[in-house]
Amino acid sequence: MDPDAVAKAFVDHYYSTFDANRAGLGNLYQEGSMLTFEGQKIQGSQSIVAKLTSLPFQQCKHNITTVDCQPSGAGGMLVFVSGTLQLAGEQHALKFSQMFHLMPTPQGSFYVLNDIFRLNYT
Amino acid sequence: MDPDAVAKAFVDHYYSTFDANRAGLGNLYQEGSMLTFEGQKIQGSQSIVAKLTSLPFQQCKHNITTVDCQPSGAGGMLVFVSGTLQLAGEQHALKFSQMFHLMPTPQGSFYVLNDIFRLNYT
Repeated sequence: MDPDAVAKAFVDHYYSTFDANRAGLGNLYQEGSMLTFEGQKIQGSQSIVAKLTSLPFQQCKHNITTVDCQPSGAGGMLVFVSGTLQLAGEQHALKFSQMFHLMPTPQGSFYVLNDIFRLNYT
Repeated sequence: MDPDAVAKAFVDHYYSTFDANRAGLGNLYQEGSMLTFEGQKIQGSQSIVAKLTSLPFQQCKHNITTVDCQPSGAGGMLVFVSGTLQLAGEQHALKFSQMFHLMPTPQGSFYVLNDIFRLNYT
């Protein structure tokens, strides 16, 4: 299994789900999962989805610029993403960067243990 | 030990060392450490320092905008940084984002297992 291919497939799946149906992201997190969103710390699949679905915009489109990945030790994989986020009705896209720590599930898939998101304003 | 305080102390130490004496960063990496620098994958303390010291600028100054951290499982800590990089003689600073996976050493300190760096051009 090529880690870069897994990372790319995860990223495609994550952002297409985010842009089409944010509530569907819940399957990617578990109870021990952590999200830090613009500095706000949130834990657990249910709370994370509540945060993501309550963001103050309805439609958005992520465009991915770079995807990097490394094994994190203990079977996990770190995925580092940069790109832009276009909100419906806004003229300018926002730059963002985000990192995920993916951990294997017993079913041979991955879940998101760690997720840190930042807009790159400055 | 407050993880946010450890992350902040690491970030201060890392970038002040980078800006003053890049070769001094070697102590923070080990043989299994990985750096992905603008997509280029490098492994091991010696190769990582060779890369960092060969970057095509002499003097630089990092300014840190945000530092986020989360426990990574297995005793490690993920540190996610955004900021700007000012190169000597250049008018405009470059935005960057970088993530570190810090792992504990037997001496009660940390070393960098994973390091992913990206300039945010777009």
